[in-house]
Amino acid sequence: MSRLFLRTLRDDPADAEVPSHKLLVRAGYVRRVAPGIYSWLPLGLRVLARIEHIVREEMDAIGAQEVRFPALLPREPYEASNRWTEYGPNLFRLQDRRGNDMLLGPTHEEMFALVVKDMFSSYKDLPLSLYQIQTKYRDEARPRAGILRGREFVMKDSYSFDIDDEGLERSYQAHRAAYIRIFDRLGFDYAVVHADSGAMGGSASEEFLVVAETGEDTFVRSPGGYAANVEAVTTVVPEPQPYDDVPPAHAEITPDTPTIETLVDHLNEAFAREDRPWTAADTLKNVLVTLRYPDGTSEPLAIGLPGDREVDTKRLETQVAPAEVEPFGEAEFAAHPALVKGYIGPGVLGEKSETGIRYLVDPRVVEGTRWVTGANVSGSHVIDLVYGRDFTADGTIEAAEVKPGDPAPDGSGPLELARGIEMGHVFQLGRKYAEALGLKVLDENGKLVTVTMGSYGFGVSRAVAAIIENSYDERGIIWPREVAPFDVHLVVAGKDPAQFSAAEELVAQFESAGLEVLYDDRPKVSPGVKFKDAELIGIPTIVVVGKGLADGFVEVKDRATGERHDVAIGEVVGTLTAGH
Amino acid sequence: MSRLFLRTLRDDPADAEVPSHKLLVRAGYVRRVAPGIYSWLPLGLRVLARIEHIVREEMDAIGAQEVRFPALLPREPYEASNRWTEYGPNLFRLQDRRGNDMLLGPTHEEMFALVVKDMFSSYKDLPLSLYQIQTKYRDEARPRAGILRGREFVMKDSYSFDIDDEGLERSYQAHRAAYIRIFDRLGFDYAVVHADSGAMGGSASEEFLVVAETGEDTFVRSPGGYAANVEAVTTVVPEPQPYDDVPPAHAEITPDTPTIETLVDHLNEAFAREDRPWTAADTLKNVLVTLRYPDGTSEPLAIGLPGDREVDTKRLETQVAPAEVEPFGEAEFAAHPALVKGYIGPGVLGEKSETGIRYLVDPRVVEGTRWVTGANVSGSHVIDLVYGRDFTADGTIEAAEVKPGDPAPDGSGPLELARGIEMGHVFQLGRKYAEALGLKVLDENGKLVTVTMGSYGFGVSRAVAAIIENSYDERGIIWPREVAPFDVHLVVAGKDPAQFSAAEELVAQFESAGLEVLYDDRPKVSPGVKFKDAELIGIPTIVVVGKGLADGFVEVKDRATGERHDVAIGEVVGTLTAGH
Repeated sequence: MSRLFLRTLRDDPADAEVPSHKLLVRAGYVRRVAPGIYSWLPLGLRVLARIEHIVREEMDAIGAQEVRFPALLPREPYEASNRWTEYGPNLFRLQDRRGNDMLLGPTHEEMFALVVKDMFSSYKDLPLSLYQIQTKYRDEARPRAGILRGREFVMKDSYSFDIDDEGLERSYQAHRAAYIRIFDRLGFDYAVVHADSGAMGGSASEEFLVVAETGEDTFVRSPGGYAANVEAVTTVVPEPQPYDDVPPAHAEITPDTPTIETLVDHLNEAFAREDRPWTAADTLKNVLVTLRYPDGTSEPLAIGLPGDREVDTKRLETQVAPAEVEPFGEAEFAAHPALVKGYIGPGVLGEKSETGIRYLVDPRVVEGTRWVTGANVSGSHVIDLVYGRDFTADGTIEAAEVKPGDPAPDGSGPLELARGIEMGHVFQLGRKYAEALGLKVLDENGKLVTVTMGSYGFGVSRAVAAIIENSYDERGIIWPREVAPFDVHLVVAGKDPAQFSAAEELVAQFESAGLEVLYDDRPKVSPGVKFKDAELIGIPTIVVVGKGLADGFVEVKDRATGERHDVAIGEVVGTLTAGH
Repeated sequence: MSRLFLRTLRDDPADAEVPSHKLLVRAGYVRRVAPGIYSWLPLGLRVLARIEHIVREEMDAIGAQEVRFPALLPREPYEASNRWTEYGPNLFRLQDRRGNDMLLGPTHEEMFALVVKDMFSSYKDLPLSLYQIQTKYRDEARPRAGILRGREFVMKDSYSFDIDDEGLERSYQAHRAAYIRIFDRLGFDYAVVHADSGAMGGSASEEFLVVAETGEDTFVRSPGGYAANVEAVTTVVPEPQPYDDVPPAHAEITPDTPTIETLVDHLNEAFAREDRPWTAADTLKNVLVTLRYPDGTSEPLAIGLPGDREVDTKRLETQVAPAEVEPFGEAEFAAHPALVKGYIGPGVLGEKSETGIRYLVDPRVVEGTRWVTGANVSGSHVIDLVYGRDFTADGTIEAAEVKPGDPAPDGSGPLELARGIEMGHVFQLGRKYAEALGLKVLDENGKLVTVTMGSYGFGVSRAVAAIIENSYDERGIIWPREVAPFDVHLVVAGKDPAQFSAAEELVAQFESAGLEVLYDDRPKVSPGVKFKDAELIGIPTIVVVGKGLADGFVEVKDRATGERHDVAIGEVVGTLTAGH
């Protein structure tokens, strides 16, 4: 410790909001260089290396072969897959001295497809799985939470190549099983959830989420075992409703009811029902947004959904990817005078309507359902408007928020919502990239067939932070044993030279037993500061050489539980190695 | 081998000129992605990892601490050191989505100075040495020779921080000694040469060059042990000459003598000397160039040097860095009508002359030396022009080529020239970066003093190629044992199932003895192709399970010497591990 490049901080960094960010900076694991860009200091690099080691072991164990691609890549392959455009401003683009367009790789599907195309040509060469542990780049709009969402980060990405769907399924399951072993070894509290494959354009995919309040992702799970990223949840579609006895739709004056709340109040006042009060779920609200595409074009979209739900922008963006969603602004309203803010109804929506605006409704809006909705006149609503009788839409869209208690799509019970950090993602990509880049091999009959691919990502540097989100207390980090920067933190608590020489002897013994030791040999630092540093740094076992030495004892403390007990100095090494 | 992601090629790649480039591509170690940008395939990555391991061991052994900085960096620190400008087009520059200028780090002096400034504040924290093994970027004008000169590459760069010059000298010597161990372990034929520190702006520096015909660097060495990069060679300056009996300078008509050769011929014809013939060394040629600075400005420069030497552009550029040198073009001559091409003499050169062009002469042009040089009139030269009597310059410059037989500056004998690959560079940077970035600490008296730095680079990915330049034959690569991708290449030479089972048994034995094996288990590949692949791939020991198996023998072949001998199958592992 007297030589280690480390300075612990008493105060949280001003820009830090989540525990891992605060603790990694305070305990001297990382240091900020620019927004979303960090340096790894000696302690941090050791943790990173231990995580890399675990990932490498599990990838090797399923027969994946390690390679390493450059981070600086030519534009052409990403042009072929259309991701040069689709990535939009998330891609770091640059030109070299000759004016060639280049990029910093955010992920490498294209490059791996190309190298396999370049080297292999027959079904006999498959199956094949390749992986790399490599630095990736994404120009995040909102880099945040330290290394949890950085702009330069380390990922393990692997890619499988198979001749047919059964092969892809086997490769996918092998990776999925390896991920489960990795997540278990890293000590994560995690969930494997159905995921929307989004911009990757694949068919089946699952996310490995680390359960943490600070996570950016919301996911759902049911008592029966269903789990999904909120973007991937599908709505349970009700049966069509009979509507023979629904009176004809009738427009009513509803003054000053531009919001669902004011509307429901007014309905209960002026149009009270006998059987039950009006609720927001009886209303159909129509939300307008602008879709902005990476190529610079844009279009309006109207979404009709029950008034008791908001539009979930992440769910919506997943459906309209690669478009980004913006709220409808004054200019857009001005361009469509038929839209009466607060009173918009289906009459002016839809591709065949006067506005021509595409109109998609929530899947709960099925034939026969009856709604109160805008009459396209200020201060007026239509009551008893029946879908399929009085109006239709251009289609449905999964854009409404998911609420606790919603039914799981597989019938496994009501959903609960939780938050998680996306740590891994496994995709059955299928043939999208192979087709775009012409990756074909000869099959058994000598016929050229397109290869089917899987893609599997794991956030190696993000894991350093996510582990902490799962394992810390008010005093500092608590590392799981397999990823701790050192196995033992050895503290000399006094100033007695005998304590220092006993400690040095212990260091030698630990090291010859294969334990890595961080030795706090600082002669002029008080025991209190040393203990505080040890708890902040979070090495799982703290050994203290203090007053007990006179009687032949040292103290062994467990960082996680706080338990401490005296151990005869001659038995310390045995005690610690027995625990491994 | 039946599963390895590998395809060996019979033919050299079209763009490859040097042996390492040809062999690394043919043997499936690397693959080109873009000019100067390569992917590492499984075999290549294994070699890279072994080299990294050796470098890490030796850096750790001198107490250097490993960290890792980002490759994507903000502009500001490089602006402070002026390298944002000085690097010119060699720097990859880009902007992030907010329009901030960023760069891909070519080297990290600025960033390390800043992190030490950020974390440490006292002389007690020093000395400190930090290193990283990390991906670097330079937008080379002429990427060439595969990974020998790439645009994305892996370097080990370390930085030392000391309170005073003695400390820096100790840190420097520790790194130098570590480099010697690394170079020895990698089996390099190398020379440690005095170097010019060039754009790095330091005081003392040495280069570690791998001796190879294909090297881009020229260096010199003397029988007495002097060695220097040709850019760093200093000319032995002659004593001033007496010139009392030199006749006054006299202009002579020398028609059609625009070159040194035509001039010398004419002198020997028309002005023959009794004692000895005129030679090119009697003439003073004046070469004009344009210096282009990274900030876009430029200026002319005239260099006067003995006619038997050419200007060495690399030596010249080292002297005028960060300017780049361009030949004087027609437009530049037109702008200075006083310059008569082929007959330029000192009369029109120098800052005080009519042209105002700065005029620097070779250090051999000392007081009293007499020259034949241009008379600034077409077809005329001046004879017996004496430096210090008849003309002077604005200064001297080391821009003339070094020739074999030139004296070593330290008196250790005549120089010979050789070519090398720059693999390592150790610099005493001094306080340049620390001053630019305000890196100060408190000294023993509580006074703020500027830290002095060293900077030490080693080309990790380049080493993979350079090792081959030192060790290959017409059949393929010959890896030194410590860096080979595997320890043993095991080949089954027949089709007998007994051979395959014996080989599989051997694989298990090798692996439990700690030897890594590449097992050529391909059932349908002929022995000839397998042997060719083994020699191309270059693993140091090749074990062949062939016909001898019936008698209980396998063949053990040394890739380097070609020696082969039969070994009883029960003794193979013992034989091979004994050699370690």
